[in-house]
Amino acid sequence: MTGAVRAAVLGAGSWGTTFAKVLADAGCAVTLHARRPELAAAITADRENADYLPGVRLPESLRATTDAAEALDGASVVVLAVPSQSLRENLTAWTPLLPPDASLLSLMKGIELGTTKRMSEVICEVTGAGADRVAVLSGPNLAREIAEEQPAATVIACPDHQRAAAIQAACLTAYFRPYTNTDMVGCELGGAVKNVIALACGVAEGMGFGDNTRASLITRGLAETARLGSALGAELTTFAGLAGLGDLVATCSSPLSRNRTFGEKLGRGMSLEEVQRSTRQTAEGVKSCRPVLELGLAHGVEMPITEAVVRVCHEGVTAAQMVKEIMSREAKAE
Amino acid sequence: MTGAVRAAVLGAGSWGTTFAKVLADAGCAVTLHARRPELAAAITADRENADYLPGVRLPESLRATTDAAEALDGASVVVLAVPSQSLRENLTAWTPLLPPDASLLSLMKGIELGTTKRMSEVICEVTGAGADRVAVLSGPNLAREIAEEQPAATVIACPDHQRAAAIQAACLTAYFRPYTNTDMVGCELGGAVKNVIALACGVAEGMGFGDNTRASLITRGLAETARLGSALGAELTTFAGLAGLGDLVATCSSPLSRNRTFGEKLGRGMSLEEVQRSTRQTAEGVKSCRPVLELGLAHGVEMPITEAVVRVCHEGVTAAQMVKEIMSREAKAE
Repeated sequence: MTGAVRAAVLGAGSWGTTFAKVLADAGCAVTLHARRPELAAAITADRENADYLPGVRLPESLRATTDAAEALDGASVVVLAVPSQSLRENLTAWTPLLPPDASLLSLMKGIELGTTKRMSEVICEVTGAGADRVAVLSGPNLAREIAEEQPAATVIACPDHQRAAAIQAACLTAYFRPYTNTDMVGCELGGAVKNVIALACGVAEGMGFGDNTRASLITRGLAETARLGSALGAELTTFAGLAGLGDLVATCSSPLSRNRTFGEKLGRGMSLEEVQRSTRQTAEGVKSCRPVLELGLAHGVEMPITEAVVRVCHEGVTAAQMVKEIMSREAKAE
Repeated sequence: MTGAVRAAVLGAGSWGTTFAKVLADAGCAVTLHARRPELAAAITADRENADYLPGVRLPESLRATTDAAEALDGASVVVLAVPSQSLRENLTAWTPLLPPDASLLSLMKGIELGTTKRMSEVICEVTGAGADRVAVLSGPNLAREIAEEQPAATVIACPDHQRAAAIQAACLTAYFRPYTNTDMVGCELGGAVKNVIALACGVAEGMGFGDNTRASLITRGLAETARLGSALGAELTTFAGLAGLGDLVATCSSPLSRNRTFGEKLGRGMSLEEVQRSTRQTAEGVKSCRPVLELGLAHGVEMPITEAVVRVCHEGVTAAQMVKEIMSREAKAE
């Protein structure tokens, strides 16, 4: 492993673990940080993350630890893969341990509650790192499929193209193909809003609606994402690409998507609390929908689907009412 | 039915029959033309098209006939819903029977072999009608779901906005919501190319690839559709809308899509001939892929997914080779 890129992946959920495998398969020396000692021990002992990726064999070279200092020691790529709303707290603890010139790569797809900040903005604020040290990875990347080494493409965005290219080289494998981009805002918004749209698609699915309805929601959802992005300075082409349309379609279509599955349970008539109790994983869209809507309001952008998701997740509106609201607003929007 | 719009639907496949039901539910006096006497008789006697829409109850007011003159008598809206490659021949026979000022609405999604003409171009050429009399209907409209009265939206495009609005009024129901547009070229290309992309998605599906791969194919497929459209004078916004992205996503995702299903069988290793023998319905993409590619070549537009579909459908390339070709060309394209 002499000369190998050292990478730390902070967060051992399904996507963090999968991306740690990608990096290891690409030849990096990877340490995965897990919060729970029993999970770190099991990953190291069994080469499997039975909680989040059961049945996937992890590379021999992948080490797991609960010690952030050990994980970060000498890392030139630091991958952040914790739930969006816990990033600020986690990163505050990790900041003193970050190697000074390491690239900080966000796998997170959320908007911070209260501040309406994108994850890269939180990273810069907490760590004091310049924007050119922070990158985001986003695309049609259902973790389970990539863990099974199905071919997938993704986008790595960073204002510093050289840094994006270095990260690209560090995670390129036969089954994982990253493209570079400089539009951080577009990639982050595409990733955050798609979770909200996927929730809406799930609700429709749970109520028994089919592919015509889902396709209409995806189409109108991408339109409202692009309107927001345009107001925030993103490139419209990003939304037509893998980190926009691609990620949205994958998330809204797959039974593996947590947000879609969460919405589906709401659509079948479960309450928010019942759904939350029934799942171990985070549905980012539940948390992010309100800050996304706030961003839209602050910039004068109408986001009818996001608004409907906020109402069903946080304002006690039923799934049936939500679909009715989306359908009637749709008529105005076109 | 005094004062009701009289409509003739020519073609009693699943989409023609479904749209005849939509028109009847919207209050039109509709006659459905079927080629086979036993089908026309069964539709009239049983209120069901058991061949193409088994289990769907058709409206009492819907009449079926094999007599085109009877169907067209007094119609102000003439709906064309035959297989794309048979339009010219059918329409040549029907032209003397067409009421002089009737709107000619195409439900067809194909490009004519040999001429590379869009369906509206064939209609104008054969009937001598001005372009402002011809309209196209396209959107995320899987027939079966609409026949079951699931809510769906669609686009009616016509250069004459008044005519589009009149057709819109004639087919508006509680479950079917049409929007008007003037971009005929964009709507027709969106409809024709999506069948080709759906075939590619089906092949990937049949080979065991998942949602990440499909989402990437949809993203790159829409990009090549928009490139072609742009070269032919279409509006790029059409491709981001219901008749572009919406239709593409519905067709590529649904097990009800004939083109996707056709591709899936190819992906599982059946030969083109075996798949053709196993299905009664037309997979437009098999026929249209070559003229679509020819249009691209004639206008200097690279269409790697379409090219791969042509190779697997008509040049003896295996599905495995096709996916490999798409993947390796993909790297150049981004």
